[in-house]
Amino acid sequence: MSITVYRKSHFNAAHRLYRPDWDDQKNNDVFGKCNNPNFHGHNYALEVGITGEVDPETGYLIDIKKLKTIMKEEVEDYLDHKNLNLDVPEFKVINPTMENIAILIWNKLRDKLEDDFKISVTLYETPRNYAVYNGE
Amino acid sequence: MSITVYRKSHFNAAHRLYRPDWDDQKNNDVFGKCNNPNFHGHNYALEVGITGEVDPETGYLIDIKKLKTIMKEEVEDYLDHKNLNLDVPEFKVINPTMENIAILIWNKLRDKLEDDFKISVTLYETPRNYAVYNGE
Amino acid sequence: MSITVYRKSHFNAAHRLYRPDWDDQKNNDVFGKCNNPNFHGHNYALEVGITGEVDPETGYLIDIKKLKTIMKEEVEDYLDHKNLNLDVPEFKVINPTMENIAILIWNKLRDKLEDDFKISVTLYETPRNYAVYNGE
Amino acid sequence: MSITVYRKSHFNAAHRLYRPDWDDQKNNDVFGKCNNPNFHGHNYALEVGITGEVDPETGYLIDIKKLKTIMKEEVEDYLDHKNLNLDVPEFKVINPTMENIAILIWNKLRDKLEDDFKISVTLYETPRNYAVYNGE
Amino acid sequence: MSITVYRKSHFNAAHRLYRPDWDDQKNNDVFGKCNNPNFHGHNYALEVGITGEVDPETGYLIDIKKLKTIMKEEVEDYLDHKNLNLDVPEFKVINPTMENIAILIWNKLRDKLEDDFKISVTLYETPRNYAVYNGE
Amino acid sequence: MSITVYRKSHFNAAHRLYRPDWDDQKNNDVFGKCNNPNFHGHNYALEVGITGEVDPETGYLIDIKKLKTIMKEEVEDYLDHKNLNLDVPEFKVINPTMENIAILIWNKLRDKLEDDFKISVTLYETPRNYAVYNGE
Repeated sequence: MSITVYRKSHFNAAHRLYRPDWDDQKNNDVFGKCNNPNFHGHNYALEVGITGEVDPETGYLIDIKKLKTIMKEEVEDYLDHKNLNLDVPEFKVINPTMENIAILIWNKLRDKLEDDFKISVTLYETPRNYAVYNGE
Repeated sequence: MSITVYRKSHFNAAHRLYRPDWDDQKNNDVFGKCNNPNFHGHNYALEVGITGEVDPETGYLIDIKKLKTIMKEEVEDYLDHKNLNLDVPEFKVINPTMENIAILIWNKLRDKLEDDFKISVTLYETPRNYAVYNGE
Repeated sequence: MSITVYRKSHFNAAHRLYRPDWDDQKNNDVFGKCNNPNFHGHNYALEVGITGEVDPETGYLIDIKKLKTIMKEEVEDYLDHKNLNLDVPEFKVINPTMENIAILIWNKLRDKLEDDFKISVTLYETPRNYAVYNGE
Repeated sequence: MSITVYRKSHFNAAHRLYRPDWDDQKNNDVFGKCNNPNFHGHNYALEVGITGEVDPETGYLIDIKKLKTIMKEEVEDYLDHKNLNLDVPEFKVINPTMENIAILIWNKLRDKLEDDFKISVTLYETPRNYAVYNGE
Repeated sequence: MSITVYRKSHFNAAHRLYRPDWDDQKNNDVFGKCNNPNFHGHNYALEVGITGEVDPETGYLIDIKKLKTIMKEEVEDYLDHKNLNLDVPEFKVINPTMENIAILIWNKLRDKLEDDFKISVTLYETPRNYAVYNGE
Repeated sequence: MSITVYRKSHFNAAHRLYRPDWDDQKNNDVFGKCNNPNFHGHNYALEVGITGEVDPETGYLIDIKKLKTIMKEEVEDYLDHKNLNLDVPEFKVINPTMENIAILIWNKLRDKLEDDFKISVTLYETPRNYAVYNGE
């Protein structure tokens, strides 16, 4: 029988949505205000869910302190107080939409967590807009 | 690989739960305070989830401005500041419970969104009570 | 030295904003959607603050169970699942705006709480709109 | 077609995480601050989800007042203002982690709810850490 | 007798904290991560409070639709999806700290609201850090 | 002109409300479930407000990193994951009610912050009950 444990975290970043191969008109039509060339920003809120079996010895699915450390090292240190377009290599070629940020976070956590665990990433770009990605 | 994007919205409405073919005693037994013949009301909070593939060109699953517009036209304009029993045709014959309101919203959004998208509707009647419907 | 203790509560109600001595055009100009003659409704969230001296014997400003009971009897039982215009005598002559509801609640609590206590009433009509009244 | 209805509740309790068959060093290594022998505590927030078919006669999946009563009798009365290690028999032999508390709540509700309903239990130990269990 | 009415709003922006007349070392010492030359960003949440007398004719302190429009035109249109340092003239000479942004918003609202009203501005830079300014 | 800056924090603790010089009957009458001799617990949420003048050089009232550090060292390290009655000297003689905890926190912060700053302490014992103390 499986259970899922969630941990919340957050980071703040600037970004801009646009494609350099499109002209201004098309970028404005598709991305609107998010295409401000001077950037805007968000407080991103993150929830990471880990699914697996409870360890009968400890009663833990995962030591949440360990999960907290991984989230800090892989996500917060990498994205907090950054300009996503300029400071994060992955977003030099793809757009830092909340969908793509969620997928990036999932991939980074997947590399650090045991294969037995399923992972879900919930990323709030604002309190009203969010994305959920679980790698499936 | 699929992802889900959520958008939150809200509307305020009055309603009453009862069946006209039941007598007062039975309506009170089943619906309690919700059977006040003068109506009561709620701030309904809505979360719509759309599941599908990310467009590699934009990095969007769906343009959230488009989703926001559909939610406004299909849900907010139809239900906000209304008496659900008296002003909304569907609830002249069925009870405006949170379950039935969630199903109505899902059906209205299903008609306006592309078939490739799966839809989920989360409807909070109060901050403590809510329903989730995904058409399955 | 004084301290303030707060307790939260909530109730759901229907209402309509209008003046019977105004014609439809003027009521719509001033009250807009809130003038729907079939009513609409809200989940009202209430925070009551009591200011005074801490009792050195118990460490309490006020027994919060006692405050909870007064709030239930004076506010929830009086307003919950009601039509404010039709079911609450005070709102047959004045408009049930959030300002007037907050003042009504303050007056009802003032009658039941000891004179030494200062009272503040915070009333959320929606999560985005609220009023604060402290009788001064 | 199925729908899920959620109800929120809460309780406050003290607990300690440790294994009596481990020495202090190992308990501190694994459980850290949660191993304080004098206990610490939490405001646990609970969300119970019930999945099934809507009753066409009432428009209810379940009468939420009935669910509220079951949650009070099975969970709140059993766990609220308790020391989980000392006052709750099940946690004399297993650790009261949020995972094990969620499983205990699920088992207690499973006994009281009709077999047709699927049940999910979401238990927040803090606003940042929570577990979800659905018996599968 | 006076009452206060609050309205919430929000905007998203990028910013950087630094003084051009200081060297990098001093800027980093004082502003830390907030001195990223590529900017970072926030979802700012705003609460505007208006204090005055209730109009006995309407039961309103202020028509909240009017307040909503002023907040949109003076604050959201001016700051939303902007780079505060580059796009907002006032922040070319002073630092866009949450304190200074709150004061700017208060000054802009003061110009548009009647003199009888007292104004308070609550500005959340993150869900954990906020400033309150009331012009006194 | 003054401004107030707020910072949120949190800690988890166990406690019991009772007076050793009262018999069980009287302790139960006054403190009810909070008198469980095995203790219960809470996630306490803390908001510290600092009022003063903005430094024109930095645009800061106070460096929030400095405030965060003081709150960690004075409050979190002192109260987190503790049994307030057994582990905190001040509560061996007075009851750890939310009123008394707020006053203790205020006194500890007052010693560490500059005299020019006014301090307010908001302490949530639960999401529904809280106290505010500002030393006046």
